Amino acid sequence: MTEHLPGSVTALAPDEPLRFDIVARAAGSAARAGVLQTPHGALQTPVFMPVGTHATVKAVAPDDLEALGASIVLANTYHLLLRPGPELVAHFGGLHGFMRWPRPILTDSGGFQVFSLGRLREVSDDGVRFRSHLDGSEVHLTPERVMEVEALLGADIILPLDECPPYPCSPEEAAQATARTHRWAERALAARVRRDQALFGIPQGGMDAALRAESARTIGGMPFDGFSIGGLSVGEPKPLMWSMLEAAVPELPEGKPRHLLGVGSPDDLLEGIARGVDMFDCVLPTRTARTGGLYTPSGRVNIRGARFRAERGPVDATCDCYTCRTFSAGYLHHLIRAEEDDTRGELLYYRLASIHNLRFLVRLMEGAHAAILEGTFDAYRERFLAGFTPPDQAVAAEQRKRRPAGG
Amino acid sequence: MTEHLPGSVTALAPDEPLRFDIVARAAGSAARAGVLQTPHGALQTPVFMPVGTHATVKAVAPDDLEALGASIVLANTYHLLLRPGPELVAHFGGLHGFMRWPRPILTDSGGFQVFSLGRLREVSDDGVRFRSHLDGSEVHLTPERVMEVEALLGADIILPLDECPPYPCSPEEAAQATARTHRWAERALAARVRRDQALFGIPQGGMDAALRAESARTIGGMPFDGFSIGGLSVGEPKPLMWSMLEAAVPELPEGKPRHLLGVGSPDDLLEGIARGVDMFDCVLPTRTARTGGLYTPSGRVNIRGARFRAERGPVDATCDCYTCRTFSAGYLHHLIRAEEDDTRGELLYYRLASIHNLRFLVRLMEGAHAAILEGTFDAYRERFLAGFTPPDQAVAAEQRKRRPAGG
Repeated sequence: MTEHLPGSVTALAPDEPLRFDIVARAAGSAARAGVLQTPHGALQTPVFMPVGTHATVKAVAPDDLEALGASIVLANTYHLLLRPGPELVAHFGGLHGFMRWPRPILTDSGGFQVFSLGRLREVSDDGVRFRSHLDGSEVHLTPERVMEVEALLGADIILPLDECPPYPCSPEEAAQATARTHRWAERALAARVRRDQALFGIPQGGMDAALRAESARTIGGMPFDGFSIGGLSVGEPKPLMWSMLEAAVPELPEGKPRHLLGVGSPDDLLEGIARGVDMFDCVLPTRTARTGGLYTPSGRVNIRGARFRAERGPVDATCDCYTCRTFSAGYLHHLIRAEEDDTRGELLYYRLASIHNLRFLVRLMEGAHAAILEGTFDAYRERFLAGFTPPDQAVAAEQRKRRPAGG
Repeated sequence: MTEHLPGSVTALAPDEPLRFDIVARAAGSAARAGVLQTPHGALQTPVFMPVGTHATVKAVAPDDLEALGASIVLANTYHLLLRPGPELVAHFGGLHGFMRWPRPILTDSGGFQVFSLGRLREVSDDGVRFRSHLDGSEVHLTPERVMEVEALLGADIILPLDECPPYPCSPEEAAQATARTHRWAERALAARVRRDQALFGIPQGGMDAALRAESARTIGGMPFDGFSIGGLSVGEPKPLMWSMLEAAVPELPEGKPRHLLGVGSPDDLLEGIARGVDMFDCVLPTRTARTGGLYTPSGRVNIRGARFRAERGPVDATCDCYTCRTFSAGYLHHLIRAEEDDTRGELLYYRLASIHNLRFLVRLMEGAHAAILEGTFDAYRERFLAGFTPPDQAVAAEQRKRRPAGG
């Protein structure tokens, strides 16, 4: 795949799994704009990575992703390990061949899902034993086995097994999980299978700033190609998440890419960029779309609402996605409400809604990259946040309005 | 919309709602190849019309339909009357504007659904009173109201209210429903609202050959633009359906298009063409696709079957659809089985499967049109039927194989 690279950026060498070049830095924040090169092509950062849990970004096809400007997708090692199995994916030429997505792919390590979905977990320094949430069969994962599995899946960027402590948890639990994650990181580095895959380290640290910093320093000191910050966006309050991120980022090597796992919403992406994050992934935009929540510059709207019934214009007049260019908001409203069963709309709805929300985030990231280059990122972020009311605040405002005076 | 018309065909005049030219006839059967012109463009017959019940062909977008070669779609008046309502559809510029499908559309009359879905029906010569299957609200339909509703929906071809007798039913019931359908047909003709919509008559006749012939003669004698044969494919055995069709077709005017409502499967389309039918519609290809049944030249296969698990090739190596050109059968197998809930696969599956089955029928019809032009339709039909095992026969053969010897 050939791309136009900025003049300052050298193309990836044949034996290099990854190259990351920072092409501009923001003045008033830690934001940076970069170019990330992988064996399946280059992409601009900051970047949002749509999540394709089962080797498919729900409801959208690879050519939809291409058309909406997605440049990299994430797939879940835990789910693909259980079904259809990494050997089968390898038989189809790895994830790129299986899902027919020719551009970069990142696989997570499965650690987060083992700790949130797997049953009867038995964690030891050796690894983790759990029962599949699908059929109850026992699975044993070690840092070495995860490297083998991800080599078979064949993503461009892979992550090592980590232990993600729950929120809340005791300081002892957080310390123990973080220390074990460090030991597993060393073993993952030693067990790398393929030279054409980049390996990102996962700093943990619970909700303790000192432990966060220590973990980022420890993992950051290991020869990883980049870093995927784990254990955040797990239910903690937003200010706590940002302070944990602020504790970790300065301890990571400046020149390597930083990925914040499991974040998220449009406003959170800009907050993360301002704190030095380059890459994001989350199921939120596609999951939200499927329940009727569509992004607009003024906030998330619920397309089921009566005000869209006769709306001839698109959901978002500023949007250039296939959905907004082609269909009225009224038609989307009809589609999600058209089925007999209220839990499910017409199938076309899911694709159109997912395309819109993904395109919204891709455009937001494209705008952020351009603004960092132009030295206007702070204004870009402030302008967006001033217009965009996050769902929590919108609900709160609505509730205040409905409360009877004096009540 | 401009099309290349055969030399023998004159373009539609500005005030003409429909023009049908038969461009070739088969030698050994009643099959004919035609060109049907409407205000939204021309199409070749024989033609299969995908069904878009709620103003959407389930899981596929208008540009998917365009890409797979669909030239006309059907929408259901009954469903659109109840939700979102014909006035709202008209507000969006009619069905063409609402669903963003620029080519021809046919709306049925709602009669079939009133008699199969509506509750507490009260039929009189005036019309039919029923309760919505959605919210129980009372709806009153008359032949005149159906003309108004379909004028608002704005399809190119519309159908009058008919009474579709159930199968089985008494000779008296069939005779009464058929006679009432004739009276309603006269009223529909008198109540036409728009000159740019073609109106097709619906002959009924139950399962009585003489009544079928009489109804075809009666409706065929009225100034309709074409005919949609109703009351077949309602549960009767196939040989009975074909004998009823054979009783009706010769009584219809030779030069006008003939549509067989609610048929169906690939083999039935060819059998219908051989008996002089030009147009078909059915939910079968898309509904079958959603449950895992995909058409191939040798019959319908169940993509859930273990034999597809590691299949790198497409579902149908002879198919040129987007799905078969892009994805392996193994990937489709994975998608339909990938969700936790066995009643539902990954959303992408539904689109890919529906595209394939629709393209299969479109190609079959394109081949039939070409074969009639070349004078080889009989051989075309025999070759297809010799290779294609209908599901019923495939199941029977499988059961015979499994029966222990001597058992």
